[in-house]
Amino acid sequence: MARMKIDILTLFPEMFEIFNQSIIGRAIEKNILDITPHNIRDYALNKHKKVDDYPYGGGAGMVMQAQPLVDSIKDVKLHNAGKVIFLGPRGVTFTQEIAKQLCEESELIFICGHYEGIDERTYDYIDMELSLGDYVLTGGEMACIPIVDSICRLIPGVLSSSESYTEESFYDGVLEYPQYTRPESFEGILVPQVLTSGHHENVRKWRRVQSLLITKEKRPDMFEKLKLTKEDKKLLSVELEKK
Amino acid sequence: MARMKIDILTLFPEMFEIFNQSIIGRAIEKNILDITPHNIRDYALNKHKKVDDYPYGGGAGMVMQAQPLVDSIKDVKLHNAGKVIFLGPRGVTFTQEIAKQLCEESELIFICGHYEGIDERTYDYIDMELSLGDYVLTGGEMACIPIVDSICRLIPGVLSSSESYTEESFYDGVLEYPQYTRPESFEGILVPQVLTSGHHENVRKWRRVQSLLITKEKRPDMFEKLKLTKEDKKLLSVELEKK
Repeated sequence: MARMKIDILTLFPEMFEIFNQSIIGRAIEKNILDITPHNIRDYALNKHKKVDDYPYGGGAGMVMQAQPLVDSIKDVKLHNAGKVIFLGPRGVTFTQEIAKQLCEESELIFICGHYEGIDERTYDYIDMELSLGDYVLTGGEMACIPIVDSICRLIPGVLSSSESYTEESFYDGVLEYPQYTRPESFEGILVPQVLTSGHHENVRKWRRVQSLLITKEKRPDMFEKLKLTKEDKKLLSVELEKK
Repeated sequence: MARMKIDILTLFPEMFEIFNQSIIGRAIEKNILDITPHNIRDYALNKHKKVDDYPYGGGAGMVMQAQPLVDSIKDVKLHNAGKVIFLGPRGVTFTQEIAKQLCEESELIFICGHYEGIDERTYDYIDMELSLGDYVLTGGEMACIPIVDSICRLIPGVLSSSESYTEESFYDGVLEYPQYTRPESFEGILVPQVLTSGHHENVRKWRRVQSLLITKEKRPDMFEKLKLTKEDKKLLSVELEKK
């Protein structure tokens, strides 16, 4: 059995073919993940498989009807006991903290909305609403894909040991230090000497102070929240004196 | 000629088949948009088309080498004069404001990173770095897709007139009001009477106050930034008295 079973309700199931690629695709092949999109349209009761209609009270755009959505949720719930998560603009903004919480679950159900919105009465069947950020997307799929990606990569076995994530940005509240790989000289620019010195302790200190400096410059909001250690403060003061 | 020409540098060009669907797919078909993914691997000079190598200074993970990335940027720049945008964790967090600015451009180049990061020396060829939010993704593609979607839907002709976006969330700093469509009764729950009254002015007021109440509850940060009109304040005080 897969470590995480995800069912996705959408009007565009083909969009989720994206998960056949790369790291997530490999985890599905290895049966660590089970991701199944379902077409909400299949639950429409009318001949033309129409799932939207005009909004009561007028206005532009179409609204997704409650019936096909609710019936699709009920059907998927028969074999998935997970939280029902709607990708919508009223949602809590997704963060790494939420990814960490959700990667502990063994089952999840995602609902992708479209058009101007969903019939308000659908909300009775929704446990949680998530938003990717403060921007408008053509549909919930565009939010669902990175959110599922972000959750799934935290599930044990999805990343290989060489794809270690412990040092990546947002894990410990600092941005990552600059990385260099071969060749040593690229277009006349050399790799910083400390990285080729073989002196592990100096490499560690250099990377730490670079992380702090980059975070300070690029994300002062993240920097402010940091609890700097004594060593951090010392490293920073030495670096700032150089300037 | 398309209104927006977008070239995307990636290790996973097949992921961008997602843009053949839905609203963006329709705009590409109508030649309003021209979106072309290019495989960075095609620019590797070695026999095995390897594009990554171990980081100088040690540590887990692989780093994308400067040469294939820089060569691919130089090649794409021959026929695309747009900004070079890297999807990376140091980037400015993407917002609707940035989407509005970028949708004015006629050409854009996006770079999707992978592995632990890119060789720092690549940054000399990058004009702008964007981040989707504070969470870790398996690759830049997962950020590129919703960002391109969000920008492209603002380009004239991409949305049909019935997909009007003027009232959507984040446009005027409030979340959208509840929407209802047929049937009038769903599982015993009726559409609010005002919406079926035919009284346009009452519908407008109801929607406005609902938007304000939802924003206040779900996004106090957005609510605080609002400049409430006299009418807004009156509508809210009437509503709050009811409770």
